[in-house]
Amino acid sequence: MRKSIATVSLSGPLSEKLTAIATAGFDGVEIFENDLLGGPLSPEEVRLRCADLGLGIDLYQPFRDFEAVPADVLARNLRRAERKFAVMERLGADLLLVCSSVAPESVDDDALAAEQLRLLADRAAEHGIRIAYEALAWGKHVSTYDHAWKIVEQADHPALGTCLDSFHILSRGSDPKGIADIPGEKIFFLQLADAPLMALDVLQWSRHYRCFPGQGGLDVAALVAATIGAGYEGPLSLEVFNDVFRQAGAASTAVDALRSLLLLEESAGLSALPAPAVPSGFAFAELTAADTEPLRGVLGALGFAHTARHNWKPVELWEQGEARILLNTGVSGRRQGPALTAIGVETSDPGRAVRRAEAVLAPVVPRRRGPRDAQLDAVAAPDGTEVFFCRTERPDHGGWIGDFTEVPSHALPREPQEPREPAATVHRIDHIALTQPWHQFDEASLFHRGVLGLKADDSLDLADPYGLVRSRAVASPDGGVRIVLNIAPSPDAEGPRLQHIALATDDIVGAARRVREQGTGLLPIPANYYDDLDARYELDPRHLATLADLGILYDRDENGEFLHCYTATIGRVFFELVQRTDGYRGYGAQNAAVRLAAQHLHQQGV
Amino acid sequence: MRKSIATVSLSGPLSEKLTAIATAGFDGVEIFENDLLGGPLSPEEVRLRCADLGLGIDLYQPFRDFEAVPADVLARNLRRAERKFAVMERLGADLLLVCSSVAPESVDDDALAAEQLRLLADRAAEHGIRIAYEALAWGKHVSTYDHAWKIVEQADHPALGTCLDSFHILSRGSDPKGIADIPGEKIFFLQLADAPLMALDVLQWSRHYRCFPGQGGLDVAALVAATIGAGYEGPLSLEVFNDVFRQAGAASTAVDALRSLLLLEESAGLSALPAPAVPSGFAFAELTAADTEPLRGVLGALGFAHTARHNWKPVELWEQGEARILLNTGVSGRRQGPALTAIGVETSDPGRAVRRAEAVLAPVVPRRRGPRDAQLDAVAAPDGTEVFFCRTERPDHGGWIGDFTEVPSHALPREPQEPREPAATVHRIDHIALTQPWHQFDEASLFHRGVLGLKADDSLDLADPYGLVRSRAVASPDGGVRIVLNIAPSPDAEGPRLQHIALATDDIVGAARRVREQGTGLLPIPANYYDDLDARYELDPRHLATLADLGILYDRDENGEFLHCYTATIGRVFFELVQRTDGYRGYGAQNAAVRLAAQHLHQQGV
Repeated sequence: MRKSIATVSLSGPLSEKLTAIATAGFDGVEIFENDLLGGPLSPEEVRLRCADLGLGIDLYQPFRDFEAVPADVLARNLRRAERKFAVMERLGADLLLVCSSVAPESVDDDALAAEQLRLLADRAAEHGIRIAYEALAWGKHVSTYDHAWKIVEQADHPALGTCLDSFHILSRGSDPKGIADIPGEKIFFLQLADAPLMALDVLQWSRHYRCFPGQGGLDVAALVAATIGAGYEGPLSLEVFNDVFRQAGAASTAVDALRSLLLLEESAGLSALPAPAVPSGFAFAELTAADTEPLRGVLGALGFAHTARHNWKPVELWEQGEARILLNTGVSGRRQGPALTAIGVETSDPGRAVRRAEAVLAPVVPRRRGPRDAQLDAVAAPDGTEVFFCRTERPDHGGWIGDFTEVPSHALPREPQEPREPAATVHRIDHIALTQPWHQFDEASLFHRGVLGLKADDSLDLADPYGLVRSRAVASPDGGVRIVLNIAPSPDAEGPRLQHIALATDDIVGAARRVREQGTGLLPIPANYYDDLDARYELDPRHLATLADLGILYDRDENGEFLHCYTATIGRVFFELVQRTDGYRGYGAQNAAVRLAAQHLHQQGV
Repeated sequence: MRKSIATVSLSGPLSEKLTAIATAGFDGVEIFENDLLGGPLSPEEVRLRCADLGLGIDLYQPFRDFEAVPADVLARNLRRAERKFAVMERLGADLLLVCSSVAPESVDDDALAAEQLRLLADRAAEHGIRIAYEALAWGKHVSTYDHAWKIVEQADHPALGTCLDSFHILSRGSDPKGIADIPGEKIFFLQLADAPLMALDVLQWSRHYRCFPGQGGLDVAALVAATIGAGYEGPLSLEVFNDVFRQAGAASTAVDALRSLLLLEESAGLSALPAPAVPSGFAFAELTAADTEPLRGVLGALGFAHTARHNWKPVELWEQGEARILLNTGVSGRRQGPALTAIGVETSDPGRAVRRAEAVLAPVVPRRRGPRDAQLDAVAAPDGTEVFFCRTERPDHGGWIGDFTEVPSHALPREPQEPREPAATVHRIDHIALTQPWHQFDEASLFHRGVLGLKADDSLDLADPYGLVRSRAVASPDGGVRIVLNIAPSPDAEGPRLQHIALATDDIVGAARRVREQGTGLLPIPANYYDDLDARYELDPRHLATLADLGILYDRDENGEFLHCYTATIGRVFFELVQRTDGYRGYGAQNAAVRLAAQHLHQQGV
């Protein structure tokens, strides 16, 4: 279907917004009046700019506080409308959004509203303009879509129809089934926005927390399906006001916006995209650093061995069980120290995964490949992390491991003491945690769901000594791939955007002891934590003493137990050892406040 | 009264919080459990630290999900409580906060709740500990203070009382009058927090938006008065969770917190502070810059004349009517260009103003004074702006103008062309607008109200192309002093923290023409704005053309009209010319989006 977006959804001046919207691939725009008023482009210039960019002007909005008023106010309002019709003619726009009135002088009289809207439509028609009347959720007398439709029906004018807005309808809990009763040709426009479920004053909710479909908790897809079912053939248009988007870059927000519409079309059964190839596990995690020595020490202590090196890139493979870490020194000039720059995910069909990614506008990463390198495709997540689609065990497509040559074990630089003696206690990567840039939390969640087919858990707030950390996990249904997305509550939160790799073990006590014996510290956890653990759970005192000795944290849910501990942080990166038993599903959120406080203290050298 | 604060109200590790709390001047603290658990100090060490700092530990909190449970859960909960009693004995704390249960296993049975709380109180009493039972606003079965008191009354144990919390009570709209029915000696504790009025889910509201009393919209003073009236003799204790405070510096937040308690005591009629000396107008605004040439050009164009210079500081006085601007080059090393660093306010009693300021913990600015300088006292506002208390017309205290020597008019450096020819059309400073640092919006508003006795308007959201700007004006009742406090929605909003001085004129068209004739540009306003103005108001076409020609914006309220225009921005500073007629009360908020967009474009050279 035709796809549009309201200019108010993006930040910056109008000309920059239009460029971003066209570049992302939208077909049309709603011109938000304030964007026109505040800019130097005349309506004619905006019209030309849109034509040059291949964008249609699908709607001019909003026109407020028109209907159901005394005669003298009506005369003023009609004069006001005529002035706007003149602007629209200069713009080349032929559809005007009229919102239900919030003016104190409007009266509760549907017949009067219908009569005055008919008059407005008559005037509009003289200019070849049509009117789309919309119920604001906080309208004074008209606040539901069926009420707005009843007035439009009563007015019975060919230039008057209704505009449906998913936020105004779903935020009030209205049932979108009633849309089926509206003739499709009388639905002149469909505006789409999602929002997180919040018990908030609806005006505040609307102004500050709208988000793109799929990023919130409203069933926008069902509403779209109902509207299409009614015979609507106009554009799907996004209208989102959000404190975050208002500050984010227009270009990237426009792409995120179009991705959300593509996924919405799919959810509503209106299009068929290549199905996601849900990954079964992590193939690898790649850490980049100018100096990998500190990482090599920690990996050795965690039981990893340097097993292979890339045939022509400065990349080392470290392995333990099915956990694989790549150390890359190929990117120079990184001052911040090690960072997690890429992950590989195991997928049965990398080709389909890439087609899916491209279909939902994930940026495909251009690769430098050696002549005999395996074909390995990657896309960039919103935070810049590259996601590679791999088939580690298959030598054909994605047989990336064939690009590596085994390192003889005696050639290991800096062999850890007795490196192969303990049984390999880490068997796989349990999860990856990535702190997202301030603007990209919701985009990141939608990206991982839309591109990889992961499912999102609920969002949690974790208490850090310097603010709340919002956290949301996305995971494959069997838990093979789990990614935890974190975001600090504001951009000036202290410190770098941390990332960590959690490694699964069946013997966390043994693994933690080995780390300590190798002389690599684990994050110390305060004794007070273990007093509280004793109060909350009746753990065996010797077991509790062992946990306290090693700094292992403990959590429990209705299914099982979770034990976890942390290494020190190197650059932006640290490692976690985790042991899940009996189907524990979470990530130890209960312990996050203590862990975050301990990390702050540790970094301050306390 | 004794004054306390919960450690959760401040950011950082526990030891830093305790130091900040003691330094601000509090008497005691509530130890929030997570602050203990996440830190390296043992309970004994915390006890010693508090003793060293002169802080009492007035409460340990919270103990959750205790009452009205099946027998096996009760046994576990009592074991859990015993562990906490042990921690409290080590801490030297003798009062435990028990919140009403949110646990799924709790049942709706007041008699059972009372019986189990009596049991808990019995156990506590063996350790010399008392229990304060509090109704959480979102408690499963007990969510109102009168219900919690009914259970406490029924339990009838000397070691069991109730804890009142202004947020939990007022957020539900409960009437605090019922507090009079609780015997004062059974009110074991009183926790205080305010909050902006929001129709928000009460749990989210509580977790993210609590603020210090006087910063929100709840009538905390009436609740305090009712509680004291009931005979309560314990501390007034602040318990505030707020996304902003969690990130702000503990030391300054602690001072703001204590200031709010002092003002609350005053509002509740519990103390008598020196009454504020409400200022009658602005004595001056002081701009600081390494290079004042650009400012001199603009001031000349605005009709100001350089009339005097300070006797021994590098400060020039520029005057027009009663509008006075000081240009100070005495501070070196400012790279950002001119900034508004101080304001003088006219007050009938500077001595009382200073005593008031000191009583509410406003930092008094240490002054370098020449031997014959007038005594001039200043305090620093939260954003660093210095506020001087002046009596310009009186030669005694605060006769600051006597420190300046008149400049002969022929000695004016860079005389503007025909400088004195037009009548002086600016007669006073209408208002000052100061963009506040991210963390200090609410503090700033409370400061200006508490120190200067100004009244606050409602908070407004203004649309900037890169985000919403929150704006709140504080003003004296007669409008003699008006200060507009602005804050961008997040700290990474682009650009410097702008400040501006609005100058009142009776002839804005003449004043704007003069500025233009002097070759100093006014901010250009897009033609589209005037098309819209024409649609909204039926202004005389010639008048409208004049406004468009000069870039003058127009607004109207139920009382009168407002015309205003802007100079270019120099460093952080720009000037506004304003003309109010017939009692218009606002600041042209309707035009803010257009003005902000125009300023962004102008700075980008578009």
